[in-house]
Amino acid sequence: MSLPQITLVGAGPGDPDLITRKGLKALQTADVVLYDALSSAELLAETPAHCQRIFVGKRAGCHYKKQEQINELLVAAALEYGHAVRLKGGDPFVFGRGQEEKAFAEAAGIPVTVVPGISSCISLPELQGVAPTSRGYADSFWVLTAHTRSGGLSNDLLLAPQTEATVIILMGLGRLDQICALWDAAGKGNLPAMVIQNGSRPDEKCWVGTVNDLPDRVAAERNNGPGIIVLGKTVAQHPAFRQEVLAAVPSAALVSVAG
Amino acid sequence: MSLPQITLVGAGPGDPDLITRKGLKALQTADVVLYDALSSAELLAETPAHCQRIFVGKRAGCHYKKQEQINELLVAAALEYGHAVRLKGGDPFVFGRGQEEKAFAEAAGIPVTVVPGISSCISLPELQGVAPTSRGYADSFWVLTAHTRSGGLSNDLLLAPQTEATVIILMGLGRLDQICALWDAAGKGNLPAMVIQNGSRPDEKCWVGTVNDLPDRVAAERNNGPGIIVLGKTVAQHPAFRQEVLAAVPSAALVSVAG
Repeated sequence: MSLPQITLVGAGPGDPDLITRKGLKALQTADVVLYDALSSAELLAETPAHCQRIFVGKRAGCHYKKQEQINELLVAAALEYGHAVRLKGGDPFVFGRGQEEKAFAEAAGIPVTVVPGISSCISLPELQGVAPTSRGYADSFWVLTAHTRSGGLSNDLLLAPQTEATVIILMGLGRLDQICALWDAAGKGNLPAMVIQNGSRPDEKCWVGTVNDLPDRVAAERNNGPGIIVLGKTVAQHPAFRQEVLAAVPSAALVSVAG
Repeated sequence: MSLPQITLVGAGPGDPDLITRKGLKALQTADVVLYDALSSAELLAETPAHCQRIFVGKRAGCHYKKQEQINELLVAAALEYGHAVRLKGGDPFVFGRGQEEKAFAEAAGIPVTVVPGISSCISLPELQGVAPTSRGYADSFWVLTAHTRSGGLSNDLLLAPQTEATVIILMGLGRLDQICALWDAAGKGNLPAMVIQNGSRPDEKCWVGTVNDLPDRVAAERNNGPGIIVLGKTVAQHPAFRQEVLAAVPSAALVSVAG
């Protein structure tokens, strides 16, 4: 048996070809893999025949295991089997609690290797034709969650509408109305905005609009799964923006954001 | 000859194993590749023997080609050779001008495929043990450039010290003093902060400190190349922070950020 070690691998946003070569190499030498609901069967198939496969994700919105249980299971798996790969959707350290798993394992004396992943917050807008930064559209991007531990909206989410950043919000789809109202209150009701669900997968769905009309566009069609929200001038780069949104909104109001 | 097409590929932050499987597949079917100084020889070696290799990057701080020339060359290369891969360091759409190359090529009628890359802004702190987001340290991260087109500091950079975000600044190393002064003026002189140069490469160098002492730590040792700056409580996760920084700074002042 190989010595106990852990590799934290970012699986990327969904498309199994968006894992890194380093992540693939880790899977190919895994003795045990702990995976999420977002992990694709294609990636699990990269592990050797002897590799144990342990599901630790969410199903139907319920945590199958608590984070503390996952931490302990990860360490126990490395001690029992050798090379334990923790495969996490997107990037392990963007709202992924990868840091907690790493700290727990290191405190238990097990060496941890980090393999960054393609984060959905950057890549999913890109795959829809929207760059997080782009000359003339956005000089910065800010990634937030709407889902604070205390349950309220964070102070940073209240500040974000005052900036020129492309704002990317994860875990906020259930509060889309509330979020868009913040931007409208800052005088940005006509700012381009979009929502993506199931990004980079065959069932990907994307809605493009303005802050003021996006909630209605999304409400009728979204599913109960997670999604990401993007607010910023850069969303005007989406092919559907000029075709659908500009046709429905007085163009004069959009000149300043779509130019 | 294959039909003209372009694939914009993010090469990742430096380590050639941090390219995606999708990016590798693009390289392996390239008829011509346009690459930067940051592209590794290992990645170019993935292209077929017949593939033309064209350097379009910077050397010694000078642009070898202007962006407009690169746009035109990329289209001309696809028309002449077939499958043209544009290999860009990090992610093509994070301060990478990928969007301009894509728009130019699409306007010329050439289909463009996007392959996101591991962005240095997220991955390099992670590889140093610092998560962009992490419970109890940071609920959001904001990626900015200090280098605006007009030459001044952006309004967003002036707002950033007021937030709780992990702030990641690219192309700002030449203004590290000025940037740290902004945070100090906001009462955050003791906030943990770090600089990384040559991230994920064998000659990687990292400095960890506080807003107030980081410029001196970096000044004596940095080279003239680019680097990224990270400011935020989450930098306290770096192993060197407790060992070096807490030993030099009155611990009472740091309790609030290092807990």
